[in-house]
Amino acid sequence: MKPGASGKEQGRVALYQRLAGELAQSIASGVLLPGEKIPSVRAMCRQRRLSPATVLQAYGRLEAGGLIEARPRSGYVVSARPDKAGGERAASQPAPGSQTLDVSELVFEALEAIRDRRVGELGSAFPNPALFPLPTLAKCLSTAARRLDPWKTVEDLPPGCRELRRQIARRYLGFGARVGVDEIVITAGAMEALNLCLQAVTRPGDIVAVESPAFYAQLQAVERLGLRAVEIPTHPRDGVELDGLERALREHDIKACWFMPTFHNPLGSLMPADRKQALVEMLAARKVPLIEDDVYAELYFGSAAPPPAKAYDRAGLVMHCSSFSKCLAPGYRIGWAALGRFARQVAQLKLASSITTNVPAQEALARYLSLGGYDHHLRRLRRFLQARQADMLQALRRDFPPGTRISEPLGGYFLWVELPEPVDALSLHRRAVQQGIGFLPGPVFSARREFGNCLRLNYGHAWTPQLARAVARLGRMAAG
Amino acid sequence: MKPGASGKEQGRVALYQRLAGELAQSIASGVLLPGEKIPSVRAMCRQRRLSPATVLQAYGRLEAGGLIEARPRSGYVVSARPDKAGGERAASQPAPGSQTLDVSELVFEALEAIRDRRVGELGSAFPNPALFPLPTLAKCLSTAARRLDPWKTVEDLPPGCRELRRQIARRYLGFGARVGVDEIVITAGAMEALNLCLQAVTRPGDIVAVESPAFYAQLQAVERLGLRAVEIPTHPRDGVELDGLERALREHDIKACWFMPTFHNPLGSLMPADRKQALVEMLAARKVPLIEDDVYAELYFGSAAPPPAKAYDRAGLVMHCSSFSKCLAPGYRIGWAALGRFARQVAQLKLASSITTNVPAQEALARYLSLGGYDHHLRRLRRFLQARQADMLQALRRDFPPGTRISEPLGGYFLWVELPEPVDALSLHRRAVQQGIGFLPGPVFSARREFGNCLRLNYGHAWTPQLARAVARLGRMAAG
Repeated sequence: MKPGASGKEQGRVALYQRLAGELAQSIASGVLLPGEKIPSVRAMCRQRRLSPATVLQAYGRLEAGGLIEARPRSGYVVSARPDKAGGERAASQPAPGSQTLDVSELVFEALEAIRDRRVGELGSAFPNPALFPLPTLAKCLSTAARRLDPWKTVEDLPPGCRELRRQIARRYLGFGARVGVDEIVITAGAMEALNLCLQAVTRPGDIVAVESPAFYAQLQAVERLGLRAVEIPTHPRDGVELDGLERALREHDIKACWFMPTFHNPLGSLMPADRKQALVEMLAARKVPLIEDDVYAELYFGSAAPPPAKAYDRAGLVMHCSSFSKCLAPGYRIGWAALGRFARQVAQLKLASSITTNVPAQEALARYLSLGGYDHHLRRLRRFLQARQADMLQALRRDFPPGTRISEPLGGYFLWVELPEPVDALSLHRRAVQQGIGFLPGPVFSARREFGNCLRLNYGHAWTPQLARAVARLGRMAAG
Repeated sequence: MKPGASGKEQGRVALYQRLAGELAQSIASGVLLPGEKIPSVRAMCRQRRLSPATVLQAYGRLEAGGLIEARPRSGYVVSARPDKAGGERAASQPAPGSQTLDVSELVFEALEAIRDRRVGELGSAFPNPALFPLPTLAKCLSTAARRLDPWKTVEDLPPGCRELRRQIARRYLGFGARVGVDEIVITAGAMEALNLCLQAVTRPGDIVAVESPAFYAQLQAVERLGLRAVEIPTHPRDGVELDGLERALREHDIKACWFMPTFHNPLGSLMPADRKQALVEMLAARKVPLIEDDVYAELYFGSAAPPPAKAYDRAGLVMHCSSFSKCLAPGYRIGWAALGRFARQVAQLKLASSITTNVPAQEALARYLSLGGYDHHLRRLRRFLQARQADMLQALRRDFPPGTRISEPLGGYFLWVELPEPVDALSLHRRAVQQGIGFLPGPVFSARREFGNCLRLNYGHAWTPQLARAVARLGRMAAG
């Protein structure tokens, strides 16, 4: 039985034609590039259980069509300018069934638009990647990979590299939180940590409390796990409203809260320390776990780090999730959760979901943190972001319609912009993207597509004349 | 409000005592190591909003207790031999609530036992990590990290690094399968790919078909997603019984099948090509997706690669998952799925679950594959594994009780051993681990804890006198 052939087809199409057609398609679709070798006749005979005559006939046909050429001592290579008309076109990839435009679809549409680096800056989820100490990280990664003890593959299984967990535990001291090495689990970024935490404390059908607006990936996670969300009113400066939360806790059987008390995405709000403490105590009294998304923790503009809710955790119910993706090493995908009583459970979930986290990257970050330049990098990064926030606020106040309300967060790199008149942020978004300007429209942060007159803008990029012009143009478009 | 202090505690314990206690605990629990600096008095004042007098009082207390010492121009460092008795002991991490011994707990117990490198060989999920071209991979990783365009962080978002996907698509040609670059999604290893595929095609409560025995992580995934499993009879040599599957398809509303047709874990079975084709056609007729776990695909001992079920996929319903973890780069956590009609959906799930896959590792593997040494490495690896299988089979036939049945797989690195008499593999496992011998007991491969007289043995390590003695001892223990 030849792979790729059903009985019927074999009857109709000669074997050499099928093989030639397959290879032609691989060339046409870009799987095989000009100048690349194709499998030798001998290898092809063995793989497909075909006779040399059949393979030679197929290759001859491709050669005659100008798709491949024989090179002395190299066998056959793909021609420099394959005649595309000769190749069968690749089949399209139809979407599975009908698509309702749910929150996920909306988010993916918006995210897709900002992948272009020319469009991305205002809409991006990251600050400018050039802000990070990539050469130093590359050296650490190189050293870690060269020195890697092969058994680390086993030893760095969840909970993860011990030295990295120790370095992370040390940093908690600077945030006024006591976290043990053994309650930390290393994950593929904070997103995986948050997802695992949510899985650990919920079952399908359960209710979780989220902020309103909420980070879109959070809404997607709730949707994906078959959970129901209760949205808690959230103040643009002070974060989750505790009265509203108390009411929701009375009215619903809430199994977990997933909040971002420090530099909320998209609001930029920061819960004052006493409210964080009250939040932790309110939840502890009801034994409700708090999943604390704290990925912007290191990006504070004040003189001291705001303590996380985790700093007030006495009951082991706060699952504090963070990562290095926003402040040090985007693309390395190293995050963690400090888990209190859920440490073992989440380590097991991690093992079962994705086995382990990239081992060289775990070792590289442990090394980077032990070298001692992290705080210096962070101070520079914070100063840069604070200065860019000032630039952006000035421009928005000048270029956006009067009456626009703009957040002034004490850290992070997002502004939340409320336009004075109801506009359709989704349609504004489409028009802006066409002009090469990205941002995230308010409705992606709401399960019910609220915040239609809101925009999230990223100010974490260099302030250039181009960016200033983009903001001005967006302001004009926003004015109608 | 000071972090880490509730109002009541503040009344009872002086601030300096609290701070000293916290730091003492960090030293006692190993978060701060001998010789490491503790935060400066100035930094500590700022972080905790304490007066210099309070911090100095705390540090003085720690110094008096011998836990830290002042170093000229370095501030305070942890003493070389801190008096452990002076430090408060770290709190224990109680498991969350009561634990029923379900399949997951059983698996974690067994996996925990084999993390010790002295115990691990026979039980390990990987072949000897020293078999892999780690120095070449380290060079590729180093080059990739040094040359990394910061924007790759955005460009390598799901579906993932295009050149890596193209290199993977090229390799499918050697397996007789046509896979387009655009239907591949890069993941954090095959485990993430498999989990995302299962999520993409099921909802909680759905029924999926699995083999019996089945890879334990598969049973865990089914459990975790709230699905129900139908176990299909599976032949130790030829894999899934198609009659049994057909019956199950008639009797149950099966939403997906998750099978491992090539070098099944733990059986080692290989479905013949015509049965794979019949399987794909049977499922296509009912529009049931097949999740094909094919992580051992490259480890065949014959002269040609067995075609995957994906090679017969006409309807785009086969989701073919694999990785480089078992054959090239364990610990790099680079896997993928070739998804047919589910490509977009799984890319979105990946984005929402863990954003992206480690970018330097994606680029490094794309580079490694383009260099052309992969096939040479694989040929050596296959020869090694085949020779070790022969060693192990010989030893087992000599040292295990007469009547023991042993699989003879045509690839991979696992043997499935059925003892002639009913034994309690779990108790055998515990006794063996105590003697420094690991293996995986049969019941971890069954939702209903069957296969009590079965063992999975890894033969992917060097055949040493120690290993020979371990096998002999295990044989004596198995004989009762």
